[in-house]
Amino acid sequence: MLAEPWSQRLAALWAEGIPLAGAMAVEIRRADEEMLVLAAPLEPNRNHMGSAFGGSLHGLATLAGWGVTLMAADPFGARHIIIRASQMRFRAPVAGELIATAALPTPTATVAFGITLARRNRARLTIPVSIEGPGGSIAAHFVGEYVASTTESCD
Amino acid sequence: MLAEPWSQRLAALWAEGIPLAGAMAVEIRRADEEMLVLAAPLEPNRNHMGSAFGGSLHGLATLAGWGVTLMAADPFGARHIIIRASQMRFRAPVAGELIATAALPTPTATVAFGITLARRNRARLTIPVSIEGPGGSIAAHFVGEYVASTTESCD
Repeated sequence: MLAEPWSQRLAALWAEGIPLAGAMAVEIRRADEEMLVLAAPLEPNRNHMGSAFGGSLHGLATLAGWGVTLMAADPFGARHIIIRASQMRFRAPVAGELIATAALPTPTATVAFGITLARRNRARLTIPVSIEGPGGSIAAHFVGEYVASTTESCD
Repeated sequence: MLAEPWSQRLAALWAEGIPLAGAMAVEIRRADEEMLVLAAPLEPNRNHMGSAFGGSLHGLATLAGWGVTLMAADPFGARHIIIRASQMRFRAPVAGELIATAALPTPTATVAFGITLARRNRARLTIPVSIEGPGGSIAAHFVGEYVASTTESCD
């Protein structure tokens, strides 16, 4: 039996658990062994200047980093993911659809993460996320630090 | 004639310009010469674990920092505010109402900011915002870098 695709798993988790993802109209554009790409329309995420609200760009990036951490942690049985810290740099306004891209961790990083999870039941991942600008440029850059654990409490 | 209070001005700006503030049900609890306090109920801002979604906490903090920057910039005729960068540290889950508090800049910082605005038509402010935890603790800490300008374009 094939496992449910990640795009469906993440969509179901967010639909049930994170109302703001619905308010932002977040859509999963791609979710595979290489990367997670999220998109959201401008209208519910606009600011007073008609470009994307910084809080929406950060929210989309937060979800992308969270999703990638879950995708990396799930094979090791760790399904509780929280964000510990974030940094974001806003370089240029986003005048259309919001698109956030996060790469899955490298095999080396994933192995180290899995070993720590097996030893300590929790492990940390640092995930960079890019927000697309026009013509392949990067309009904003986010780095999130996430903690995955095999138990409900992360503290 | 008294100027319209800041709580009404900010509420009107966000109601018209930032749909996500409505989706988050952001409320202005206090807005005076000392501080800006924003609140939002947990329900539209919860995550899959029943505590506040990190993206909502960051969104509320982003608005608090933006509001305080506008309050500081407005007397100098600068009404265009954008966020340039943010850092956030999530220390503990927020299990109830989300509350973000930002202090107005000190008089010294405000004077320096006003002088730069007068000289260059734009100036930068760094605004710390605290997210309240139980019993007066701090559940999360945000620092935003904002740019205010007297003209529409900040670039």
